[in-house]
Amino acid sequence: MSGNEIDNLIDLMAKLPGLGPRSARRAVLHLIRKRALLLTPLADAMQEVAVTARECLNCGNVGTSDICDICSSEKRATGEICIVEDVADLWAMERANVFKGRYHVLGGTLSALDGIGPEDLAIPRLIDRIEAEGVTEVILALNATVDGQTTAHYIADQLEDRVRLTSLAQGVPIGGELDYLDEGTISAALSARKTL
Amino acid sequence: MSGNEIDNLIDLMAKLPGLGPRSARRAVLHLIRKRALLLTPLADAMQEVAVTARECLNCGNVGTSDICDICSSEKRATGEICIVEDVADLWAMERANVFKGRYHVLGGTLSALDGIGPEDLAIPRLIDRIEAEGVTEVILALNATVDGQTTAHYIADQLEDRVRLTSLAQGVPIGGELDYLDEGTISAALSARKTL
Repeated sequence: MSGNEIDNLIDLMAKLPGLGPRSARRAVLHLIRKRALLLTPLADAMQEVAVTARECLNCGNVGTSDICDICSSEKRATGEICIVEDVADLWAMERANVFKGRYHVLGGTLSALDGIGPEDLAIPRLIDRIEAEGVTEVILALNATVDGQTTAHYIADQLEDRVRLTSLAQGVPIGGELDYLDEGTISAALSARKTL
Repeated sequence: MSGNEIDNLIDLMAKLPGLGPRSARRAVLHLIRKRALLLTPLADAMQEVAVTARECLNCGNVGTSDICDICSSEKRATGEICIVEDVADLWAMERANVFKGRYHVLGGTLSALDGIGPEDLAIPRLIDRIEAEGVTEVILALNATVDGQTTAHYIADQLEDRVRLTSLAQGVPIGGELDYLDEGTISAALSARKTL
């Protein structure tokens, strides 16, 4: 209905997470209306990222160099490594701007159902890094799902006696209302209660 | 946190309608993971659309030629013109695949508040087309908002006595449940009730 190039762009946009066919059409019309301000810069930015983006060979973060800014900064060599499932989690931790150590991106979780074993994740490289970087504490920041927790247990088994192992605290989120929380969170928050 | 090129792409993606900063980050990570399958093709498709997309000089539809496929098809010269607010509405009508005439995209609605008068919309060109294309029926398919209906009244005033004027029927949507409909729709459906 609107020229093959435009339909092709709509089909590709609809493959992005969070966009369906309807929102892809809306986005493409918006892009065509803002051709100079948005469409051309976006095409250029994508081309650039397609060329420059790479995974950090050390931690698995996504950046524009073989060793990411965090791994190459001496300031971040605190002896602490925070283990996350994927790059989005690493970026979320960085936005909180409180962790001063380095990261290790697993690239998923162990999953018997999907046939994902330790060799499919970045676990061997993690064990190498413990020695090489003189790591003293490993912070497990895996998602609070069954697979996430299974993975955390497996890693804890592997690293026991070598480093201090910790995990993120579970409890009521800041600003959270009890009425809206699930029972599991309330129960975790209660059993980890603090003396004032 | 992740290289200037990637941050730049995230900022641009976040400007798309329907995407915020969080979903833009998710989309960009997805794109980087699917570099060959999605990122490069998407960049190419955008570049192509930036060069080829244009507005139909006759009806205002967005396509890849100066006169769109609908306006250049002799089969669509049925003497009926359907008036829509914007290109997204035209595409929605075309997906329904029942209207066989041509369209006219107004490019908005009259709005005293935003200072949009008839000369800011494609109304003069519409009046030219009525003569030039031998139009016998004008179907008003404007949104059922205050501005949309004001615009419909204005156009009806201008075209009275020249052509047959109709508008889309209002009523219960197919598959709609009365319990979820607003009072205005129920009242419109009742007053336009049909004899079985």
